[in-house]
Amino acid sequence: MQDQNSAVTLADAFNQATYIIGGHGSRKVKVLQEALEQVDGETFSDHYGNGSIIDEFQQEMAEVLGKEAAVFFPSGTMAQQIALRIWCDRADVKRVAYHPLAHLEIHEEDGLKELHHIESILLGEANRLITLEDVKSMKQEVACLLLELPQREIGGQLPAYEELESISAYCREHGIKLHLDGARLFEITPYYEKTPAEICRLFDSVYISFYKGIGGIAGAILAGDSDMMQESRVWKRRHGGDLIGLYPYILSSRYYYNERIGKMGRYYEQAKELASLFNACHGIRTIPERPVSNMFHVHFALAASEVEPLLVHMAQEYSTAITSYLNKTGGNSCSFEMSTGDRYDLVPQDKLRDALTWLDGEMKKKRF
Amino acid sequence: MQDQNSAVTLADAFNQATYIIGGHGSRKVKVLQEALEQVDGETFSDHYGNGSIIDEFQQEMAEVLGKEAAVFFPSGTMAQQIALRIWCDRADVKRVAYHPLAHLEIHEEDGLKELHHIESILLGEANRLITLEDVKSMKQEVACLLLELPQREIGGQLPAYEELESISAYCREHGIKLHLDGARLFEITPYYEKTPAEICRLFDSVYISFYKGIGGIAGAILAGDSDMMQESRVWKRRHGGDLIGLYPYILSSRYYYNERIGKMGRYYEQAKELASLFNACHGIRTIPERPVSNMFHVHFALAASEVEPLLVHMAQEYSTAITSYLNKTGGNSCSFEMSTGDRYDLVPQDKLRDALTWLDGEMKKKRF
Repeated sequence: MQDQNSAVTLADAFNQATYIIGGHGSRKVKVLQEALEQVDGETFSDHYGNGSIIDEFQQEMAEVLGKEAAVFFPSGTMAQQIALRIWCDRADVKRVAYHPLAHLEIHEEDGLKELHHIESILLGEANRLITLEDVKSMKQEVACLLLELPQREIGGQLPAYEELESISAYCREHGIKLHLDGARLFEITPYYEKTPAEICRLFDSVYISFYKGIGGIAGAILAGDSDMMQESRVWKRRHGGDLIGLYPYILSSRYYYNERIGKMGRYYEQAKELASLFNACHGIRTIPERPVSNMFHVHFALAASEVEPLLVHMAQEYSTAITSYLNKTGGNSCSFEMSTGDRYDLVPQDKLRDALTWLDGEMKKKRF
Repeated sequence: MQDQNSAVTLADAFNQATYIIGGHGSRKVKVLQEALEQVDGETFSDHYGNGSIIDEFQQEMAEVLGKEAAVFFPSGTMAQQIALRIWCDRADVKRVAYHPLAHLEIHEEDGLKELHHIESILLGEANRLITLEDVKSMKQEVACLLLELPQREIGGQLPAYEELESISAYCREHGIKLHLDGARLFEITPYYEKTPAEICRLFDSVYISFYKGIGGIAGAILAGDSDMMQESRVWKRRHGGDLIGLYPYILSSRYYYNERIGKMGRYYEQAKELASLFNACHGIRTIPERPVSNMFHVHFALAASEVEPLLVHMAQEYSTAITSYLNKTGGNSCSFEMSTGDRYDLVPQDKLRDALTWLDGEMKKKRF
């Protein structure tokens, strides 16, 4: 292989490629413009959490999730801290448990500790799912256990549904509230063959996001019992999230929810197909090997410095881009995250296969 | 007067009136649609606080306010709590001072106490401005003094500029940081005959809002020194305000800032003119008597239950509405807040004067 243009970064090559394998599209202003196109301009804004534009969407999502009530938040970070705070206050225990790579632990600058003074127990191990045994072996009392389905930072893995049911039953017996980080809840319904409400029945509270599989701008829903939701509105105000108008996020969430909720099965099929193509390449494997949602991680048994020029070349010569970045996972390995979406079906299958066949050949030459 | 339709509420009558005296217009989705009309759909979203769409606006506002740096926040509630937290952490004093009717004290569900464990000293008295004497007579050490200009809950009053300079000098001498709640900062520049940067020079940090005089959807800027702004980003993430995309608020803030920043002088003139019309009516007076910005409070020396049917009638028979609500301020008095804006110049002067002449006559009959 000749690297014709070593000055081009992977991100540049990715953005310039004709075919991008993952996602729904670039995050651009047209995403919002499209969502607003059909909205009557005379529609009134919500007003500090009230008004039909927010009430109706909250009601709709409460029904989808099978909960008494739901509240729209600007972000999941805000919604989840608040959910955990409420459970801690009710139990009068300032401690919760979650996975070592939970969003709260690695992406929120310790907001839960700094703002709410809640201690966290990191349950299980970073490279695997939380098990029933982990829950049973907890020595300290916790108000709440948070489970993230799928567990994003390990490629989007899921426990067997029966294990989930057992954890839920154990928590109910032992007075531990169970909260679902359902940022990608809709994306797992095809694998579990359950409705969102069926899955949420195992949990006392749930958060969902509108900019992962749904592809909206931003925004989150927290759902649970009516009292909890009422209390969450007070905390939303305290956090500075009770904006005079959240409608830009509400309208786009509703629009893209309606656009994509019926496509989750297709995204799941795409992910399985794509993962099998990667796994057929030398020195490439996916985690999980067989995806259980629209996402997985792609691992190369080769240093990022060696993989990067290959991916730049592939994007330039085969017009096919699979990632804009590589995470170094060791001296001789690297990885990236893949989430399938609307873009996948726009890529001609022969283009994709030609590109991956070439990549496979290069990987084989390098090492295998 | 015959109250022809007593079932109509004041809010209904207000919304149905042809001429509404205050504000820029209803808060409707078209406000956002208009702001997005001229934006290139290929413009990239901001991404967790980064990207040119947010960088450029922050830079522009830092320059307008004469500060080293600025950070865009979803709300002023979030921005101000964070500013006070940073000043408290730097001083290692968990105490601040502000007016008894500060936004933090009456509209934020005690977020500052509940999330940041910061104690507040309520300085001066509810019905008047904070004075230099109040500041000098503080007995406890505080990290920061927050001043709100204009002081909204007492009609939008302002201290003399010289008093402000003295307070600023005193605080600098005594190691007290001075923070400006400048939700309506642009609106006071015509009265002080100062630029925003000249006023902000008296303060160590400043917050401004984009949905008061500017008339955007929501959003706020916090400005100060570079270190503080860097720290504020960490807290923004902790609060759940570091959204993947804040651009709906950024684009609308920028659009309406450009639309209206040049009109602040006109709004101020409107407010003075309108206040003098109210003050000419029996049993009606404004606070302040002579506005110092685009806002003032209108007080009736008559119970809300008696004033309401008059205002409903005026809205229906004279097509002219001045408020959608009345606050009861005692057994025999009530009030509302007025902020002038784009709508004022759409009202024919004779319509307005006819309506107020009628109202004056009715008020006179009632009591005076």
